[in-house]
Amino acid sequence: MPRRSFPLSEVYRLLEPGPVVLLTTARNGRTNVMAESWHTMLDFNPPLVACVVSNRNFTFKTLKATRECVINIPTVELAEKVVACGNVSGREVDKLQAFRLTPVAGIRVQTPLIAECYANLECKVVDTRAVPKYCLFVLEVVKAWIDPARKHPRTIHHQGKGVFMVAGKTIKLRSKMA
Amino acid sequence: MPRRSFPLSEVYRLLEPGPVVLLTTARNGRTNVMAESWHTMLDFNPPLVACVVSNRNFTFKTLKATRECVINIPTVELAEKVVACGNVSGREVDKLQAFRLTPVAGIRVQTPLIAECYANLECKVVDTRAVPKYCLFVLEVVKAWIDPARKHPRTIHHQGKGVFMVAGKTIKLRSKMA
Repeated sequence: MPRRSFPLSEVYRLLEPGPVVLLTTARNGRTNVMAESWHTMLDFNPPLVACVVSNRNFTFKTLKATRECVINIPTVELAEKVVACGNVSGREVDKLQAFRLTPVAGIRVQTPLIAECYANLECKVVDTRAVPKYCLFVLEVVKAWIDPARKHPRTIHHQGKGVFMVAGKTIKLRSKMA
Repeated sequence: MPRRSFPLSEVYRLLEPGPVVLLTTARNGRTNVMAESWHTMLDFNPPLVACVVSNRNFTFKTLKATRECVINIPTVELAEKVVACGNVSGREVDKLQAFRLTPVAGIRVQTPLIAECYANLECKVVDTRAVPKYCLFVLEVVKAWIDPARKHPRTIHHQGKGVFMVAGKTIKLRSKMA
């Protein structure tokens, strides 16, 4: 993937539609990945993201310890792998290897990006006050990347129980909304 | 709309895909509505939702004061009205009246539901600790309604700058993800 730097001020345009994402974390040379849908933008620039990572997930401890992660946005071509990532724990399986997802180095975090995803957001944990009660981490996106060749990435949006909505057509209206 | 009660345990299936929603609030007999995309599930049951309402929005003060609102989920048929709601403030305009959106009474909150939306979630504010820093309200959905006639509601998902992705087809995979 020929990755290109993506403006931080535009990151909300990637996350606001609500795609399933693949969250990578790494510790002691071991990278893990989980599928995740419980996230929202909190602020535009610097882009802040609130993201729920259950304390039942293997990712939870790593995220707390390293205070960094990468949000990778997959498209429908990766749907089977996304589901596979959601169906097993990193405690048992090296998921990147098992599902043939390619780690590539970022520049602002030690956590690898996933090459097959059309966008990658390098994140630092900036606030953990809502973690004890809600497992809600506040992340700041410190570097963003996109595959410029993907003009209409067909993201997937989880509707529960293995049902995913695939991004359809886009419409443009005269909105003043940010 | 022949509304039907919808199980609270299934509410995440409506919000997790990340649709634009119309948030209604009401105070002193006056109902307001705003378009909103910055929300995420926080817990399944009772369903908790984290929702950003900027303190620049007219809704902010009402939500803080009344500690209740309704999350209404529109479909693409309402896209023009959603954008219209996002383009003006309730300080200036009675948006329900101006855009011909029909208020209907809920049963657990004083705030009206919007009849034209395919789903309506009556909510109570249960935690405001993240409001000062992030304008982030934690809502508990206390009653949910759906239009059972709408089998494949084509929700809209904001990509910024007036561009909306319209929900496309759905796929079913063998996911163990909730």
